Amino acid sequence: MAENKKIVLVVGAGDATGGAIAKRFAREGYVACVTRRSADKLQPLVESIQAAGGEAHGFACDARKEDQVIALIEQIESELGPIEALVFNIGANVPCSILEETARKYFKIWEMACFSGFLNAREVAKRMVTRKRGTILFTGATAGLRGAAGFAAFAGAKHGIRALAQSMARELGPMNIHVAHVVVDGAIDTDFIRDNFPTKYALKDQDGILDPEHIADNYWHLHSQPRDAWTFELDLRPWSETW
Amino acid sequence: MAENKKIVLVVGAGDATGGAIAKRFAREGYVACVTRRSADKLQPLVESIQAAGGEAHGFACDARKEDQVIALIEQIESELGPIEALVFNIGANVPCSILEETARKYFKIWEMACFSGFLNAREVAKRMVTRKRGTILFTGATAGLRGAAGFAAFAGAKHGIRALAQSMARELGPMNIHVAHVVVDGAIDTDFIRDNFPTKYALKDQDGILDPEHIADNYWHLHSQPRDAWTFELDLRPWSETW
Amino acid sequence: MAENKKIVLVVGAGDATGGAIAKRFAREGYVACVTRRSADKLQPLVESIQAAGGEAHGFACDARKEDQVIALIEQIESELGPIEALVFNIGANVPCSILEETARKYFKIWEMACFSGFLNAREVAKRMVTRKRGTILFTGATAGLRGAAGFAAFAGAKHGIRALAQSMARELGPMNIHVAHVVVDGAIDTDFIRDNFPTKYALKDQDGILDPEHIADNYWHLHSQPRDAWTFELDLRPWSETW
Amino acid sequence: MAENKKIVLVVGAGDATGGAIAKRFAREGYVACVTRRSADKLQPLVESIQAAGGEAHGFACDARKEDQVIALIEQIESELGPIEALVFNIGANVPCSILEETARKYFKIWEMACFSGFLNAREVAKRMVTRKRGTILFTGATAGLRGAAGFAAFAGAKHGIRALAQSMARELGPMNIHVAHVVVDGAIDTDFIRDNFPTKYALKDQDGILDPEHIADNYWHLHSQPRDAWTFELDLRPWSETW
Repeated sequence: MAENKKIVLVVGAGDATGGAIAKRFAREGYVACVTRRSADKLQPLVESIQAAGGEAHGFACDARKEDQVIALIEQIESELGPIEALVFNIGANVPCSILEETARKYFKIWEMACFSGFLNAREVAKRMVTRKRGTILFTGATAGLRGAAGFAAFAGAKHGIRALAQSMARELGPMNIHVAHVVVDGAIDTDFIRDNFPTKYALKDQDGILDPEHIADNYWHLHSQPRDAWTFELDLRPWSETW
Repeated sequence: MAENKKIVLVVGAGDATGGAIAKRFAREGYVACVTRRSADKLQPLVESIQAAGGEAHGFACDARKEDQVIALIEQIESELGPIEALVFNIGANVPCSILEETARKYFKIWEMACFSGFLNAREVAKRMVTRKRGTILFTGATAGLRGAAGFAAFAGAKHGIRALAQSMARELGPMNIHVAHVVVDGAIDTDFIRDNFPTKYALKDQDGILDPEHIADNYWHLHSQPRDAWTFELDLRPWSETW
Repeated sequence: MAENKKIVLVVGAGDATGGAIAKRFAREGYVACVTRRSADKLQPLVESIQAAGGEAHGFACDARKEDQVIALIEQIESELGPIEALVFNIGANVPCSILEETARKYFKIWEMACFSGFLNAREVAKRMVTRKRGTILFTGATAGLRGAAGFAAFAGAKHGIRALAQSMARELGPMNIHVAHVVVDGAIDTDFIRDNFPTKYALKDQDGILDPEHIADNYWHLHSQPRDAWTFELDLRPWSETW
Repeated sequence: MAENKKIVLVVGAGDATGGAIAKRFAREGYVACVTRRSADKLQPLVESIQAAGGEAHGFACDARKEDQVIALIEQIESELGPIEALVFNIGANVPCSILEETARKYFKIWEMACFSGFLNAREVAKRMVTRKRGTILFTGATAGLRGAAGFAAFAGAKHGIRALAQSMARELGPMNIHVAHVVVDGAIDTDFIRDNFPTKYALKDQDGILDPEHIADNYWHLHSQPRDAWTFELDLRPWSETW
């Protein structure tokens, strides 16, 4: 293990946002450790970082499984170096009327978008407090601030992750761990939006959807803040978004 | 089944608050159906309501088990009458440092204080929308609005229940279902507080802890509101409480 | 002065809401003191309360003028009795693009809907703290929680009144003064809405606009709360309102 | 007037924060126009920017006087260039019990910390919308989110400025004007804190008070955000701050 390597761990790097954040930290000299359930889909991201001269490693990890999370973090810390920044970026926005929501789906959305955030953040925090430094960033959504018709499950998970972030910020801030929550409000420039919401995607021409690289710049900004002026929460939305 | 009976279902009637709410609705002529995991502990409450001339029924129901919840509501609706008001009153405030919180406890607290709320509220809402009327009341806490050091699990569950309440209010309000969330902020006059927090309990002499009957009055007030002036959220705290 | 008379002072009793609140408290035995800029317009309200067997007095008072406010409260307290409840109910919702808002109008809206609230509440609070009891209720609006396009002035005033209410609640609660803020969200059944927003008013048939009497019931409910379970804030909106 | 000069106007540049923001924008090539009531006190700031190779101009302007504000902005725009960024940075934190707060002081605090913000922001916005670009940044405080005992006047003004910011963001965002609100929570490294709160100031050694330059970095960050990912609100506080 190289003592002087600095690791960013991006949990949920399967989407454009997670990928852009990993690239951004890699450009700044961080070793990017990226995870999703199946590692092979991470290969293009890892190769892209390496092609740009960075160091990256892809890991298959079911972020909802405590043993897998513990093992992953142990492996990274022992083989690669200290995790200086954790980015938890798993979402699960599946709208549904409350009258038709199944117990299974309500649970799965929480397990994926909230419980796995707890597992990863707690496990990394345990290491960070021994070093008395580190950053933990959560990707949130407007649904984390306000429930809406058809979004009981997603709002529940996102409220939960915000409660986690706020509780951790208040407990770990005085231990020099910077915990922050980013409220992303609007469609992001992804294949998913392009393929499923063409009208929304057409707003790209006029900057009406979020560019993942610009989201990533804000994560880097948060990580870079000196500790006398830390941000807990910021929101990001396109100029043209109604809110 | 008596067509003209009106039912209030209090889920989590094991504590003083749930009991007081059941009694309050019973005094107004409602049949009080009260549940907790083991029915025998409900007997004193049921007898107390009956002794006052009311009708009450105790049910053992693990509110976290979908099949039990479905069966209970089916039984009540077919044998006793339509559930006009549901009160979800299960809490689970077990503070813990985020560094020591176990996955099991984090899950259990959410399952008890949030997931079971979803199960019960969804199941009752399905009946209410067919009748185009009904009230669903959730007992919340300050932790549902704000995370705090040592309260990641509890705040997560309470944020989740508030997100559920808000999402349901927005979806079901226009179907004439009144959904509301009560933020209880402060110690309640219970055996638990008396036995474990004597200094806090001593404030009772000067009205410094919440009387369950006064909490219950506010639940009744919410249920009684005409539909042109519904409240979604109100907070309750002793006059002397710092907040 | 009759020692045992209890006074409610409704500042801004010119509209349907203020009038209904005055009547509600009068029905409960309170002497209703109602104010607006010109007293003659209060005559129908005063007579209506008297016809119902209550006691009421109308006062001309420009609530924005400190000397008039001080003189009014001195007069009421010395001639009629102690003010047990103050209701501040002056609004001033005049939408305008920020680009066209005049300094004069921005100031006037604040002076009317916020500054006069400060003057009246402070002056009454001074009396209440010497008696160690009393209730101060503010009529708020959704604009007090969230700014919106075209509502900079109104939102500013309503945010200000909410800040006043919250600051007073935190300072005066421990002195046994109950301060609360009511968020009215939706059109109210008034001549103004009937004459200017006929489509909105037509919702009255299906309870889609707020009945002032039902608003008044909630003010009475707040005033009646025992001090171990005080509410600081509740919202009121029609069942069919989108929010 | 040089067509290609870009102006930042900092209203309330008398304190360390305003000064640091002016310097930061000047380093990026902006002409820094700084104002306070008496211009002579601005001289050290102007000279400091010039000594570093930047361009700066100090203006005496009573930000509460509409005619002075209009004249100042007209002068800057006609003589120096278009105002690309406005920073409103006037505070007025003077705590007082609500029972002793004078009408004069309550008004003055609002006039200084809120009304002058309206005047300056409206006047600059009128210019920006014709150019379809620009940034307006407001310095806020925790008191803008929550009232507290002894802070009715300050909280009222800060709530008002936040309502203004939010209303303007929602109206002007779709016109390509970026409006944002910065919640500064904690003591800032200023002469005032050093001279009046020595215990607080001693925290400087461990980064326990905010460095104005770090605050300024965040203002620059906000101004630099591409329009597909704008922040409306972020908070800043020292790592060790309790909140």
